[in-house]
Amino acid sequence: MHIFDTTLRDGAQREGINLSVADKLTIARHLDDFGVGFIEGGWPGANPRDTEFFARAREEITFRHAQLVAFGATRRAGGSAADDLQVQALLDSGAPVVTLVAKAHDRHVELALRTTLDENLEMVRDTVSHLRAQGRRVFVDCEHFFDGYAANPAYAKAVVRAASEAGADVVVLCDTNGGMLPAQIQAVTATVLADTGARLGIHAQDDTGCAVANTLAAVDAGATHVQCTANGYGERVGNANLFPVVAALELKYGRTVLPEGALAEMTRISHAIAEVVNLTPSTHQPYVGVSAFAHKAGLHASAIKVDPDLYQHIDPELVGNRIRMLVSDMAGRASIELKGKELGIDLGDDRALVGRVVERVKERELAGYSYEAADASFELLLRDELRRGADGAGDAAPSRFFHVESWRAITENRPDGIHANEATVKLWAKGERLLATAEGNGPVNALDRALRVALERIYPELAKFALRDYKVRILEGRSGTDSTTRVLISTGDGDAEWSTVGVAENVIAASWHALEDAYTYGLLRAGVEPAE
Amino acid sequence: MHIFDTTLRDGAQREGINLSVADKLTIARHLDDFGVGFIEGGWPGANPRDTEFFARAREEITFRHAQLVAFGATRRAGGSAADDLQVQALLDSGAPVVTLVAKAHDRHVELALRTTLDENLEMVRDTVSHLRAQGRRVFVDCEHFFDGYAANPAYAKAVVRAASEAGADVVVLCDTNGGMLPAQIQAVTATVLADTGARLGIHAQDDTGCAVANTLAAVDAGATHVQCTANGYGERVGNANLFPVVAALELKYGRTVLPEGALAEMTRISHAIAEVVNLTPSTHQPYVGVSAFAHKAGLHASAIKVDPDLYQHIDPELVGNRIRMLVSDMAGRASIELKGKELGIDLGDDRALVGRVVERVKERELAGYSYEAADASFELLLRDELRRGADGAGDAAPSRFFHVESWRAITENRPDGIHANEATVKLWAKGERLLATAEGNGPVNALDRALRVALERIYPELAKFALRDYKVRILEGRSGTDSTTRVLISTGDGDAEWSTVGVAENVIAASWHALEDAYTYGLLRAGVEPAE
Repeated sequence: MHIFDTTLRDGAQREGINLSVADKLTIARHLDDFGVGFIEGGWPGANPRDTEFFARAREEITFRHAQLVAFGATRRAGGSAADDLQVQALLDSGAPVVTLVAKAHDRHVELALRTTLDENLEMVRDTVSHLRAQGRRVFVDCEHFFDGYAANPAYAKAVVRAASEAGADVVVLCDTNGGMLPAQIQAVTATVLADTGARLGIHAQDDTGCAVANTLAAVDAGATHVQCTANGYGERVGNANLFPVVAALELKYGRTVLPEGALAEMTRISHAIAEVVNLTPSTHQPYVGVSAFAHKAGLHASAIKVDPDLYQHIDPELVGNRIRMLVSDMAGRASIELKGKELGIDLGDDRALVGRVVERVKERELAGYSYEAADASFELLLRDELRRGADGAGDAAPSRFFHVESWRAITENRPDGIHANEATVKLWAKGERLLATAEGNGPVNALDRALRVALERIYPELAKFALRDYKVRILEGRSGTDSTTRVLISTGDGDAEWSTVGVAENVIAASWHALEDAYTYGLLRAGVEPAE
Repeated sequence: MHIFDTTLRDGAQREGINLSVADKLTIARHLDDFGVGFIEGGWPGANPRDTEFFARAREEITFRHAQLVAFGATRRAGGSAADDLQVQALLDSGAPVVTLVAKAHDRHVELALRTTLDENLEMVRDTVSHLRAQGRRVFVDCEHFFDGYAANPAYAKAVVRAASEAGADVVVLCDTNGGMLPAQIQAVTATVLADTGARLGIHAQDDTGCAVANTLAAVDAGATHVQCTANGYGERVGNANLFPVVAALELKYGRTVLPEGALAEMTRISHAIAEVVNLTPSTHQPYVGVSAFAHKAGLHASAIKVDPDLYQHIDPELVGNRIRMLVSDMAGRASIELKGKELGIDLGDDRALVGRVVERVKERELAGYSYEAADASFELLLRDELRRGADGAGDAAPSRFFHVESWRAITENRPDGIHANEATVKLWAKGERLLATAEGNGPVNALDRALRVALERIYPELAKFALRDYKVRILEGRSGTDSTTRVLISTGDGDAEWSTVGVAENVIAASWHALEDAYTYGLLRAGVEPAE
């Protein structure tokens, strides 16, 4: 089975992706680590960046698993492959494998190529033979194959035969417009395989939401080469997603398609590639999303403790992911205990303590808090309750780093049209009263800066903290600005990132609470002892 | 074919979704507009919010297409359905249809329910019969059906038979853990149908990335009831996405499953539901994503003009989406002209004017504005340009009701723990300088009140205006509070509702701009003549 990745070529067509040569080299390394067999790097000659990529990849990367593939088109109508500059650029790229795109739909031959059906077949034969004669391995992508097959099956099959007979190793059936469903893919692939005997591949687009299933349907029908992209990146809706395709082949079909140990790197590699292309990793991506093994319902939590396999289709560690218990108002004791364990806090057999945490979570979620996306705030809540001890009355040790006396934020639009934001905070820490004023580009930014100015001398660890993400949600949407506001903040220290939540009747006060938690948690993480 | 939506029950399990009763009512209206046959509203009795939803839905919504469905479990082991409080709550909800979840996997019966296999069958029979005797239509969700079938096919089928023989209208085979692939779903569904003769439904989760295909595979095998959620929201990876499932049934299978004209509302309804749950609509969602019919300009552009069907699997207008040529076509002339017509503003043949509007929209969308959900702000922009006349230089008539000199908002947390919010505005209207200060429960609320106090004497029409909804979105999420903020405000006058947008470097300033537009538009609507 060929695992063929085209993230760098077809994936780069996704709206919003713009890859530099350095990005492409980084992604190629990740894909090689993952163990795909083929990495399609781009169209050398058509695009100077792609030409440079092949040149640098040859020099800078020693592939352990993958072979580099150059993508290009069959020669021009009426010419010869040997004299075709575009074909020559494929050879010049130095890639050992070439994927040629060929038209397989009669109307596309006539309307887009503006040549005859016979000349198109000759273009396929000539270009494949020429590349083979130059020692290249050749795959042929039959563009618009399934639509073409519906319109003119004899011609579509003639293209497959021409490619195969001229020496193409694999002929790839492409659902270029992405409109197919699995049953159609399976039937057509089986027929083409029976009628031509060619080695077949599949290239599916996700326009019906079935690209993964379409890819597997072709495999069921005998295809032995799957073209995919990391995270399903691609034009329009996207391509067949490499990760669920490979996971299905390994874990559901029981076929070994990756080097040993590679599947357990899947989650990391998926996220790393998302970072490179500068897209937030999809939280809900199959297998690798942070939510892919997240359980919310309190109902299930007690049973999950007994036997996790009853509630998940695979062990998440197989793909490098992990189970997560979401803390929500549906949470019961079992999920709080599991969450404590996940955070490394042993709640032991203290039933009263767990009960109190459950109550507090329910009460606060009713008030608008949401701990699902705010692990750090939840951990602070848990630690507060732990500190109080089993009877809920204790107060053995300090748990906070500062106390707030007051704060104020002023936003104004001055007559000269300038927006000004100024915040003042008055705090107490280690017995000292701290007062600071700062400006910012908004009231929350000004408060954040003032808090930092006030505390930095006493807690120099704060200098490394930086706000990473900031989300506002207005609850009870029908009551306008009288609503409750929930703010989620992500903070990082260059090493880790943590999320906190604040709820209040307005966005500034809610942000303040989330900031307070963010600083408190960050200091705890840095190993500083609470002083208050 | 039953189109059964469970966004409000199973969809709400998605990490990050937290629906208020008002949210649920709004989503139910959208789903009814879309024309689904059944809307599962929640689990009355298990959750006070769901109980309230059923009570309010009964009073406030007249469904045109859908029937409301209450979800619940079979009665407790060892009891009787007639005495079961949870079962009674399903009846009390007043929903004409009940979906009962039943265990169909032998190990789940033993480990989670802690009862015998026979008693579980009895629980199914008793509960279905009781609900039928009370005049309810009953669907039975066989939880973990496919895993259960793999472990003990005879028992899994016995549950189907028990439900069907007791009077369940449909028995739904659930891939609760989401680990199945289409071939398995199809084979098992066909066998169960042949062996039991029950009317079958399918409930697929997306853990293998195949939920849509799995749903269609069950339909291919004879299932006539599909359970889906809007935008695929659901636990872990999510559920089968309603929109591509319905689109495949209508457009690929040629089956009519929606009322006439509803499919063309699909894109709008998908985005509207995303707004309610406060998730950014997925740009790459099949059929309805903004990228779903986006084509890179250049290569294919001329061929697309000749015959768009060569490059797209369906006409995007069928699902209310549109073709987008990337790079150049963010807001084309044609769409501005259409939009003007929609708003009742004739832009005539004034090409220079349309060109200027296109430029302004592009420029403002680049800055973060979004006019899709802010018709009132767009209309103000259009009117401003119209007023300037064809040459862009005119300024024939006033277009605004007031001018802003300055404003200021102060939010403070006082030492006594009280939050105080105070805003001051300084305006000019009809030659008068107006100054007002007001308090509110947040800075935006205080600004809104101050604006109202300042203007109400001159424009008494303002008294009727009320803020209806307020949404904040932080753009460019990676830069924390340094980001740009977009605020969308809905305002009503008891008669109509209009939406405005404001963008600025902070939430207060962005809110102010949206408020300014909201008041200006409301006064125009009320027929007041602009004075400035």
